[in-house]
Amino acid sequence: MTGFKIKKPTLVLNKDRVRRNIRRMADKARNNGVRFRPHFKTHQSAQVGEFFKEEGISSITVSSVDMAEYFAKNGWEDITIAFSVNLRQIDEINTLAEKISLNLLVESIESVDFLEKHLKSPVNIWIKIDVGYKRAGIEAEDFKSVLEVANGIKRSENLRLKGLLTHAGHSYHANSKEEIKEIYHHSIALIKKTGQFLVDSGFSGIEISVGDTPTSSIVDDFSGVDEIRPGNFVFCDVMQMILGSCSENDIAVAVACPVVAKHDQRNEIVIYGGAVHLSKDTISTKNNISIFGLVAQEAQYGWGPVLDRTFVASIAQEHGIIKTDEQNFGQINVGDLLYILPVHSCLTVNLLREFYMIEGA
Amino acid sequence: MTGFKIKKPTLVLNKDRVRRNIRRMADKARNNGVRFRPHFKTHQSAQVGEFFKEEGISSITVSSVDMAEYFAKNGWEDITIAFSVNLRQIDEINTLAEKISLNLLVESIESVDFLEKHLKSPVNIWIKIDVGYKRAGIEAEDFKSVLEVANGIKRSENLRLKGLLTHAGHSYHANSKEEIKEIYHHSIALIKKTGQFLVDSGFSGIEISVGDTPTSSIVDDFSGVDEIRPGNFVFCDVMQMILGSCSENDIAVAVACPVVAKHDQRNEIVIYGGAVHLSKDTISTKNNISIFGLVAQEAQYGWGPVLDRTFVASIAQEHGIIKTDEQNFGQINVGDLLYILPVHSCLTVNLLREFYMIEGA
Repeated sequence: MTGFKIKKPTLVLNKDRVRRNIRRMADKARNNGVRFRPHFKTHQSAQVGEFFKEEGISSITVSSVDMAEYFAKNGWEDITIAFSVNLRQIDEINTLAEKISLNLLVESIESVDFLEKHLKSPVNIWIKIDVGYKRAGIEAEDFKSVLEVANGIKRSENLRLKGLLTHAGHSYHANSKEEIKEIYHHSIALIKKTGQFLVDSGFSGIEISVGDTPTSSIVDDFSGVDEIRPGNFVFCDVMQMILGSCSENDIAVAVACPVVAKHDQRNEIVIYGGAVHLSKDTISTKNNISIFGLVAQEAQYGWGPVLDRTFVASIAQEHGIIKTDEQNFGQINVGDLLYILPVHSCLTVNLLREFYMIEGA
Repeated sequence: MTGFKIKKPTLVLNKDRVRRNIRRMADKARNNGVRFRPHFKTHQSAQVGEFFKEEGISSITVSSVDMAEYFAKNGWEDITIAFSVNLRQIDEINTLAEKISLNLLVESIESVDFLEKHLKSPVNIWIKIDVGYKRAGIEAEDFKSVLEVANGIKRSENLRLKGLLTHAGHSYHANSKEEIKEIYHHSIALIKKTGQFLVDSGFSGIEISVGDTPTSSIVDDFSGVDEIRPGNFVFCDVMQMILGSCSENDIAVAVACPVVAKHDQRNEIVIYGGAVHLSKDTISTKNNISIFGLVAQEAQYGWGPVLDRTFVASIAQEHGIIKTDEQNFGQINVGDLLYILPVHSCLTVNLLREFYMIEGA
């Protein structure tokens, strides 16, 4: 039983891969002349944040007021809370807006009016636009509502219209790289049209901010865009690998889990590692099997290649059940550590928070 | 905007319901003359543990060494770690076994041999039996393996065979109360047969321990059983409600979530409350709709009745999307709090941990 004396489910982070993932995206943004404002909800870690500083990044995205407070405390001075503003946290927002350059999202005139009434310092405002994901935001073609909100911002004292922001999250449901590119180009066309409408209505300096790791990883040309906000790319995961937006060697986090039992009648391995460590996020493979993670054995640098015909097939609060073939089954013993590559690294990292840092790309 | 000044997703716990749920199960166990060893993985809270002490409970179940350490620190002296023993935590197990009456689960001769070699104090051992859930444990009818493990325990110095333990988790996939009862009776018949085999092989005092909230809630007669270990019943949730093992008024936890946006074209409400608050656990309703929670409005005592035709339809890291009808849609405003009744309270409570305690049954 080797492995950094890991005794229980533990998040292991490969520092070299993290740095390489950051550098690749930062270079791409630089080459395109767009602002790189990475989404920090994936790692939620001041330590990982330092790797971004090394690449000259100074603007970041988060998804809650709490995360904004955390990163502001850690020296970040330009933060977008990419979440339709939560009016109940107006006091915390005012405290932040006093200290840093704060960027908020709105999608209704009610929120604009509330902010104007209660804000004590200036903030930048992005209008959240829905380009087809249908989660949040004003529909891109609903010019009437966009104009109503933009005019509300114009009338206000402390709100400064920065531009239009969208998250094309439907890229996660794409079946090919081509489809991801199509979603990107369709999204950009839509939001640019909305931006042009605002320009035609007398607004100037309207920026366009787009996000999501699948499109940011696969698309090479960000023409017409001012800012990109991918987050997941920093760690990647099985979902990105299946989407084609990363390779296995880009995946920078795994959860080391002890083997607690083996069932030879069904080539199943029981690990200590369940929903409270990995999350219940699942994905369908090309063979239409629903999996909760891929599996690797220990190696000199953390974990080795993903085992063939082996996956986390089901999950309970603390248990994971791995299905494998006879050959792999025979090589794994009770007490061993297996490394689970998560389906969705954001949720896994949120659950475990602390990590062992290793090197070796 | 009222509601205990709740500003962000917050776990709200109804103390009176919790106490009533505990009393009901404790009474049932007493009436049946079985030991009540509740599973504390659902709440993981010393404070909620005190309500159990008030009912005279002194034996508990947990699912990890860490939880055992936490509750041992909080005065619990008889703890079963209902999880096939994690050999990598042998040092922590030894520390616990010195201080409290510790009960461990084994399901292989390798684990028995390891424990015998490394244990420094006596522990009680349950053999984990699989009665059809097919997650962990020796199959009930695999008498050869059961005997091998039992003989290993008999030979050892610090291991004391307590009996056979099972978790009929397939009760969660049942479609009716009748089916849950059938699963219970089938499980008991199987494990009793295994127990009788051990008695016939010269072992004495073999106890039977069973668990799971659906069967413990629905079955009234625990004949032939020495111990029950339900956990979820303390809070209940939408899953138990749909299974028929609790009513809406037994559900003792909800997550209060701020409304951040409304989309009237599709009667959808966006809440601040997502996978990192509720978990990604989902359940199919009778109409075959997959939901992530039910929805209630604020009321004098926490939350009111579940809203008709209203449910959490999808979930992202921090966002929840509620689908509702026109009438409910009109009554809900940006800035309001909505109370989400979770699909699986164990995972939700694990994510949020801290709670506001309210009263009023």
